[in-house]
Amino acid sequence: MTALDTPAAQSAVHDSDIASAVDQLVAQLAATAVQRDQQGGHAAAERAAIRASGLLHLGTPRAWGGLGLPWTTVFQVVRRLAQVDSALAHVFAFHHLQIASIRLFGTAAQAARLLQETTAGNLFWGNALNPLDKRTLATETPAGFVLHGDKSYCSGSVGSDRLVASGWHEASQSMVVVALPTQRAGVTVVADWDAFGQRQTDSGTVRFEQVQVSHDEVLTYPGNVATPLRTLRTQVAQLVLTNLYAGIAQGAFEEARTQLRQHTRPSVFSTAASATQDPYVQHRFAELWLLLRPAVLLADDAAQQLDRALEQGPSLTAQQRGDVAIAVNEAKVLAHRAAIEVSAQMFELTGARATSQKLGLDRFWRNARVHTLHDPVDYKYRDIGRYLLDGEYPEPSSYS
Amino acid sequence: MTALDTPAAQSAVHDSDIASAVDQLVAQLAATAVQRDQQGGHAAAERAAIRASGLLHLGTPRAWGGLGLPWTTVFQVVRRLAQVDSALAHVFAFHHLQIASIRLFGTAAQAARLLQETTAGNLFWGNALNPLDKRTLATETPAGFVLHGDKSYCSGSVGSDRLVASGWHEASQSMVVVALPTQRAGVTVVADWDAFGQRQTDSGTVRFEQVQVSHDEVLTYPGNVATPLRTLRTQVAQLVLTNLYAGIAQGAFEEARTQLRQHTRPSVFSTAASATQDPYVQHRFAELWLLLRPAVLLADDAAQQLDRALEQGPSLTAQQRGDVAIAVNEAKVLAHRAAIEVSAQMFELTGARATSQKLGLDRFWRNARVHTLHDPVDYKYRDIGRYLLDGEYPEPSSYS
Amino acid sequence: MTALDTPAAQSAVHDSDIASAVDQLVAQLAATAVQRDQQGGHAAAERAAIRASGLLHLGTPRAWGGLGLPWTTVFQVVRRLAQVDSALAHVFAFHHLQIASIRLFGTAAQAARLLQETTAGNLFWGNALNPLDKRTLATETPAGFVLHGDKSYCSGSVGSDRLVASGWHEASQSMVVVALPTQRAGVTVVADWDAFGQRQTDSGTVRFEQVQVSHDEVLTYPGNVATPLRTLRTQVAQLVLTNLYAGIAQGAFEEARTQLRQHTRPSVFSTAASATQDPYVQHRFAELWLLLRPAVLLADDAAQQLDRALEQGPSLTAQQRGDVAIAVNEAKVLAHRAAIEVSAQMFELTGARATSQKLGLDRFWRNARVHTLHDPVDYKYRDIGRYLLDGEYPEPSSYS
Amino acid sequence: MTALDTPAAQSAVHDSDIASAVDQLVAQLAATAVQRDQQGGHAAAERAAIRASGLLHLGTPRAWGGLGLPWTTVFQVVRRLAQVDSALAHVFAFHHLQIASIRLFGTAAQAARLLQETTAGNLFWGNALNPLDKRTLATETPAGFVLHGDKSYCSGSVGSDRLVASGWHEASQSMVVVALPTQRAGVTVVADWDAFGQRQTDSGTVRFEQVQVSHDEVLTYPGNVATPLRTLRTQVAQLVLTNLYAGIAQGAFEEARTQLRQHTRPSVFSTAASATQDPYVQHRFAELWLLLRPAVLLADDAAQQLDRALEQGPSLTAQQRGDVAIAVNEAKVLAHRAAIEVSAQMFELTGARATSQKLGLDRFWRNARVHTLHDPVDYKYRDIGRYLLDGEYPEPSSYS
Repeated sequence: MTALDTPAAQSAVHDSDIASAVDQLVAQLAATAVQRDQQGGHAAAERAAIRASGLLHLGTPRAWGGLGLPWTTVFQVVRRLAQVDSALAHVFAFHHLQIASIRLFGTAAQAARLLQETTAGNLFWGNALNPLDKRTLATETPAGFVLHGDKSYCSGSVGSDRLVASGWHEASQSMVVVALPTQRAGVTVVADWDAFGQRQTDSGTVRFEQVQVSHDEVLTYPGNVATPLRTLRTQVAQLVLTNLYAGIAQGAFEEARTQLRQHTRPSVFSTAASATQDPYVQHRFAELWLLLRPAVLLADDAAQQLDRALEQGPSLTAQQRGDVAIAVNEAKVLAHRAAIEVSAQMFELTGARATSQKLGLDRFWRNARVHTLHDPVDYKYRDIGRYLLDGEYPEPSSYS
Repeated sequence: MTALDTPAAQSAVHDSDIASAVDQLVAQLAATAVQRDQQGGHAAAERAAIRASGLLHLGTPRAWGGLGLPWTTVFQVVRRLAQVDSALAHVFAFHHLQIASIRLFGTAAQAARLLQETTAGNLFWGNALNPLDKRTLATETPAGFVLHGDKSYCSGSVGSDRLVASGWHEASQSMVVVALPTQRAGVTVVADWDAFGQRQTDSGTVRFEQVQVSHDEVLTYPGNVATPLRTLRTQVAQLVLTNLYAGIAQGAFEEARTQLRQHTRPSVFSTAASATQDPYVQHRFAELWLLLRPAVLLADDAAQQLDRALEQGPSLTAQQRGDVAIAVNEAKVLAHRAAIEVSAQMFELTGARATSQKLGLDRFWRNARVHTLHDPVDYKYRDIGRYLLDGEYPEPSSYS
Repeated sequence: MTALDTPAAQSAVHDSDIASAVDQLVAQLAATAVQRDQQGGHAAAERAAIRASGLLHLGTPRAWGGLGLPWTTVFQVVRRLAQVDSALAHVFAFHHLQIASIRLFGTAAQAARLLQETTAGNLFWGNALNPLDKRTLATETPAGFVLHGDKSYCSGSVGSDRLVASGWHEASQSMVVVALPTQRAGVTVVADWDAFGQRQTDSGTVRFEQVQVSHDEVLTYPGNVATPLRTLRTQVAQLVLTNLYAGIAQGAFEEARTQLRQHTRPSVFSTAASATQDPYVQHRFAELWLLLRPAVLLADDAAQQLDRALEQGPSLTAQQRGDVAIAVNEAKVLAHRAAIEVSAQMFELTGARATSQKLGLDRFWRNARVHTLHDPVDYKYRDIGRYLLDGEYPEPSSYS
Repeated sequence: MTALDTPAAQSAVHDSDIASAVDQLVAQLAATAVQRDQQGGHAAAERAAIRASGLLHLGTPRAWGGLGLPWTTVFQVVRRLAQVDSALAHVFAFHHLQIASIRLFGTAAQAARLLQETTAGNLFWGNALNPLDKRTLATETPAGFVLHGDKSYCSGSVGSDRLVASGWHEASQSMVVVALPTQRAGVTVVADWDAFGQRQTDSGTVRFEQVQVSHDEVLTYPGNVATPLRTLRTQVAQLVLTNLYAGIAQGAFEEARTQLRQHTRPSVFSTAASATQDPYVQHRFAELWLLLRPAVLLADDAAQQLDRALEQGPSLTAQQRGDVAIAVNEAKVLAHRAAIEVSAQMFELTGARATSQKLGLDRFWRNARVHTLHDPVDYKYRDIGRYLLDGEYPEPSSYS
């Protein structure tokens, strides 16, 4: 597949139109989110709508045809989309994560070429980087590498134009990271994701069969030294998750409010004239809000720290990188909690009628539950505690 | 449908066989529980298995062909079934609730006749008593009453042989309760239950169209005085819920243990040799257990109090009834919490692989979430607090 | 008493010296905080140190001899002091609250006169405004009012130069607020505060015996209309409390860290080389931090909103005032929780040796526990919930 | 000191009088508990009252002059005393723990002799066994051992007649346990306990200076094999703590109830006619109860398991001992939580007036806080989790 094959760049969004592009996309996703959650599978029409929105290029520098907005804004858009459809928001966000990977891992020339192709062709990137799955082996050849073997949990791979992929290089016991077209000979995407939540994240298995990758597609060579700047890629990924969780919590909260204002009747035991005036409903609703609001505040604060760190560039120190990681961890733990608790406890407020499958309100919990297992929250606490007690920053890794 | 039409009483369980009958039924339900949860609808084969088990007559006195076991035992069986299939456990338990209703509301003669018919015909009872839905009106006639109008949330109605139903008597502003065959002319059961959990509880709408009910089918006449003994029916119902919740929590806990022992790998950050040796896994697992164990202990304690109160019979005082109600409230709140928290937090331990739809482990949370909304937990707290502070017992009602 | 009688203005702080003045004051308070907590009573030397620091005039406009800093800064100083001595921090903060009362309730002329006197004389203000205690009656006279009767919970009254006091005006069923010298004939301050925490807040009873107050001392006349701007006084008061709570939480957290790093040994069951490396210690410490950090972030955010609202002046709308109140409520609930939980749970980490009276570490909990009862937190939740559900702002009152 | 020197056995309690003896002792302790908590130090009069009550011999077999009651009863008395004075309840309970130590560690002859002396002389035993403090060394001599060095945290040592003490035997790297008179030459008890709670537990340092101990005073020789039965001593100790915590929680709960019923006024924002009718007060009070009731239920359940295990005697298996340990751990964690939470949150309900030092209600939290640090709760969770996940029982030790 070349850029020309893609569903064109007909919808290039002008800066002043971003807010309305987001609103329109949210409306499109919301219209069918409940039904699509029940169906699972690939959301072709909605991925087309995402492309058409022009928002795939939110964070790409203007020089390369993008909208040039900071990560703080990108994450706010992710959060907004996640309020109604956290699966498609994930696909959207993981596209941006691949863009970040190219910029952080690749050379300036690679970044320029790949991002210009991306904006020109309105390309959609998917992920094939799962570092825990070492079945995909990368073998060196004169021309570059050959990838062979399966890679699981490849979010956004189904229906993508391009992939950022990793292969395990046995000789150096390290990872090779490459960027390649999804249509490359030997690449097959298997739509085998079957979790009970985040059902349309296209997180299938990518099967590599003797796939040729050329040198100019290699973003990270075996044994490539990970500078503090490069390892910020993990913090981008962790903030993607953070904002997806926060968005799910916000979406659940808003649906609870709607139910309470429009449909829920006060308990037979309540003396309140409306459900919204019941003292326990008011109290619990505030408790949920107090899980949600700090999570959002800390997510934005961490995003600003990330933006500043990225702006600093190669001079970024390990300590500065560590400070970003701690801020991200804090936000992520709060967002994790908010998503799980708000999506579960909302029903305590809305009552039994809100459990109708027509409303599909359980999807918030299912989405939150599946997605918050990306990496174990207890080791985020540990990392925060360790830093506070002994001043040790999290060791940069694919998850920290 | 008459008793002769039912799947016969071929399986009368002998006392000594109860444990194995339960085990066999659990195995039958477990075999298809995940699949049936995904399908929803009516579980004809499993309801047949329940009938065949003979366990529908667990609590019915031996004099009337039953097994004569106390409620304490009935609830333990409910809990055991709920560990693998809380929807069918609900149908099973609601049958027993109707038996209790007949014994508490009807005359001795009615109880004798209806329960003998039930054991002889191996009849399955369903519920059509929802007191909050006053659309079903009961109009007096010389022969008895005519019921007309819909009744929602009728658990176990689909596929039942008999119903305990209530109608609203406008003149006296009170409820008439009757027992009638589900096949009675004018009765239609609409399978319209569509919640995201407890999907096979057959909790449809029963439509009454000018349904004739004779005097000997009337369990409670308008304005019937509710003695403390009669109002124990609500405590039976609340303990049914309590034990369903506790069973769900136990089932989730066991599945988490199985996953952890057999499938979960330690976190990439953990230094433990196995997931079960990770310090955070051990800690969290104990926390879940400490939600579960007190809930079960209090549920059994409350059931014993209920059994004693029922044995006491008509001399039961309002205060003694109130003591049972408080004990039941305590157990119910703990079981509610345990079900919601264990079914949600189990995934924090088992990790992402346990979210595969093949395992169907989200059904515990969905079942707990839907079922715990039966009546609002905050007013259970209030009732407990009010009693502790001012010595006021919960006013007997359909929910307290 | 005139300005000349006061402990002189020898220590006027220059703007550039504020940080070091705060540091010095913190050190002075910290040196004896444990011992003074055990003694209780009036901390004359420390109140003298506060005066000498010049920090009493932090927020007073430069035009009137003050340092002209925003409330955001004042509250940060309050928080800083509260980390080591929340009782004296309270006295310090309540002085500033009186300054706010004068500026919000009084005329421009009154504000100018009283604040200039205050900076010139380095006066210390105390509180005698408790609106729930209506025993102090205000009776009109041609010259002004006569106050008579007791007023309880008068923080900072012992040892003060000036008081802002309220009297209940029976005829109009409303409050009169006045500013007067503590030495005024008929005023007696009784040091009868005996709570188990915040022991040196000088929160005694002020006894008014036929006390004459002239018209130019009256800040609020009976029936005075409360504009949105004027009612911001309550939000200043609530943010004082918020920042005292947050400061207590910070102080407890820091002490826990010190203990863990310097004194605590790992549990006999732990395999960790030091207490700070124990997995449970790290986890719990992070949990406490995640109570603390959002509380501080929201407190600062609310203070900025307050500063903007005050800058806006008389055009402030009820809605804008309501937005400030909601932000303050949010911060206060989080700070309340953080103070109670951090000060209690710190010991779970530090172990038994940290309970020695020599260390006095229980004072954080005792101070938090006493102070967080100022007004009931459940009604803060209610106010937040009510706003979120029905858009109703808290009705302006002495506590909301 | 010999048995004859002790405050005589004038008060031998007859079985039928136990309840009233407990009531009377509770009343005596309650009368001065607040005042004595503030003073700290040794409660000579109250220890005399404990002796006079005859309750020191509750669990001692009748054959040896005791009352022959099971541990279940002993712990209920401990809990009852702890409701009003958990420091003296501790001293009382630790006496019983020494009796248990003699029976479990000593020979039958030693037990007979020491317990008969104890009932005959109405002797009070103290503890000098702290296994973590290895400064007290035990050196073998032909006649027995010589103890030398300090032993800290010796509860009940001040004012005791007899001590169970341990010394560290370097050669075998194991503990020697002995029983000896507190008046033995070379023994000095230093009243240096200065924690902010449990102030009158007489938990001083015992200083041993070349103290001679004869063979018939040695309960455990170096390298003595710890049978499952013998290691039940730790479970007795842990249940002592459990019941002290549960009693503190009960005491705090009762005081909160009294305040709420008699003194607390509803919040200015509440529409309730009394504090006890405020919806939030009712809810929170029920929440506290639901912390307390399971703790008590599990404590009694664990005590019954302990009694059965002790009755079984030397045939007790490691597995049976392990089951007791797990039951005790469960109860202890719940009691720990209940004590900390009820004693802290009670004030949220009772309001500010309940913080007066005259009422001394903070002593519940201070007592709970200090005492629950005896050994770290997180490792109780771990032990429970480890057992549930891998079937491993806690390894018998001085704390497990």
